[in-house]
Amino acid sequence: MTRIVIHEVGPRDGLQMERQTVPLETKEAWIRAVMEAGVDIVQVGSFVHPVKVPQMADTDALFRRLLPSKPSSTVLSGLALNERGVERGLACGAEMFCVGASASETHSRKNAGMGTEEATQRIVAAALDAVEAGAGVQVSVQSAFGCGYDGRIPEERVLRMVRTYLDAGLRHVSLADTAGHANPAQVERLFSEVYRLDPEVECACHFHNTYGLGMANIFAALKVGVRSFETSFGGLGGCPFTKVAAGNVATEDFVHVLQRQGRRHDVRLDRLIDVARAVAAYFGRELPGSVYRTGPITTGATA
Amino acid sequence: MTRIVIHEVGPRDGLQMERQTVPLETKEAWIRAVMEAGVDIVQVGSFVHPVKVPQMADTDALFRRLLPSKPSSTVLSGLALNERGVERGLACGAEMFCVGASASETHSRKNAGMGTEEATQRIVAAALDAVEAGAGVQVSVQSAFGCGYDGRIPEERVLRMVRTYLDAGLRHVSLADTAGHANPAQVERLFSEVYRLDPEVECACHFHNTYGLGMANIFAALKVGVRSFETSFGGLGGCPFTKVAAGNVATEDFVHVLQRQGRRHDVRLDRLIDVARAVAAYFGRELPGSVYRTGPITTGATA
Repeated sequence: MTRIVIHEVGPRDGLQMERQTVPLETKEAWIRAVMEAGVDIVQVGSFVHPVKVPQMADTDALFRRLLPSKPSSTVLSGLALNERGVERGLACGAEMFCVGASASETHSRKNAGMGTEEATQRIVAAALDAVEAGAGVQVSVQSAFGCGYDGRIPEERVLRMVRTYLDAGLRHVSLADTAGHANPAQVERLFSEVYRLDPEVECACHFHNTYGLGMANIFAALKVGVRSFETSFGGLGGCPFTKVAAGNVATEDFVHVLQRQGRRHDVRLDRLIDVARAVAAYFGRELPGSVYRTGPITTGATA
Repeated sequence: MTRIVIHEVGPRDGLQMERQTVPLETKEAWIRAVMEAGVDIVQVGSFVHPVKVPQMADTDALFRRLLPSKPSSTVLSGLALNERGVERGLACGAEMFCVGASASETHSRKNAGMGTEEATQRIVAAALDAVEAGAGVQVSVQSAFGCGYDGRIPEERVLRMVRTYLDAGLRHVSLADTAGHANPAQVERLFSEVYRLDPEVECACHFHNTYGLGMANIFAALKVGVRSFETSFGGLGGCPFTKVAAGNVATEDFVHVLQRQGRRHDVRLDRLIDVARAVAAYFGRELPGSVYRTGPITTGATA
């Protein structure tokens, strides 16, 4: 059985939409706890302009503090929007870059200031800079399953972007459901198409829970071979540039069900629950996740 | 493609756990709206002792008010715990009975006052009374996927109950995840085992969302051939006799995703959303459902 990879995106996708900017020390404590829990990849933040997203202004500083003493089993990733972002990330030692363009023309223009095709080319250039520097790279198609502005996104549009990535030699591809429009049948179909383009591509996915479908979409992706999952502590999250977006699937909910199915028992679920509780306490509100509130099922794993 | 059957259990499973008893006229209005939306089966209430569950004391009266003027496309079901309940239901014209026993010994004793085996025999007797009277019957295995008291429930225990039902000629069988312990792999496995016992059995399912898995479990059940789904308006619900239980999957969330996948466009989602909003307004709190808050995706069905 191929190992399932858990990519914690709470420190980036979760915190970027919060009005409150979380102090560096608090982020650091949460990220350290997630690493100690045994999560494979943690997205520390994004290399964006601090005026545009002030919540992410300390990303470089966080990398500098975390890298010297992190467990070797965890990779620290950072989101970049362009070559400048990759340059900043390389300067502070980021091990892996997540870069992507939106399949929605309107979302792309609002988010990146240019259309899908131009943005995809720019992203490929940024990704290749990171590859050349020896860093890990994951390229994504945002709004791959639908968009709050443009509605339906033709699958051919998504597949064209994936082909552009593959042609550039970029083999870690994430499809992101930025607005939460994905449904399980669509998820199976679209990832199957991606695997038809190249059976060796390493697919990741990222689902928002706007319409209550995040976890169902994760299992649809699992079914067709996707092995890397982006989730967020407590289910925090949402993209400030889309019209409607709820949180991500909660990391601890996902690990909980994986363990019920006999997988990833190496991850310390109790630590992940502690983190989600700390995040909920910090913001003083209930988060969308379930297991951090109920606690795990303590008896009878039925794998 | 076989038609997917939607069984609205909000008026029973949703309302039975509420402290507040909803007036008959209010329930009637909600149920009429659900029927007009085109839902296939509505569970009006349960025929239990009014002292034990006062919220259900008006079930007989509700049936008497609803039956004369209901659309022919909707079946009205009622839950009964024993032969006495079936007798009461027949007296007020219930068209379909949902009866069941728990696969968890402790849950069975707490809920029915007797162990699983005795309870199963009693349920078969009650079911056969209903069959003889010409009513529809669905027999269920409660706590089929795990139990807050007993933890893991051996699958053989569930299958033994299903065999007892099948041997008695009862062919509509529901597996209920009373505590919300089910995971998608388990759901696929257990329903597949049931179909191996009898490929012609009509399976239904009922999932609670305690650990965030309700919708994922529904799609797992769909995958292996289950076609009847018990859901609740707004996601209201939970069993007062289990230690931990959150709501059901929300009916309008389920219909929303079915329609996104090109199915059940005959159901009026807008009416279901109105009902969920009315229920939320009545109780003055946010319900677990998503779509009644966000509204449906209005563009780009991607079936």
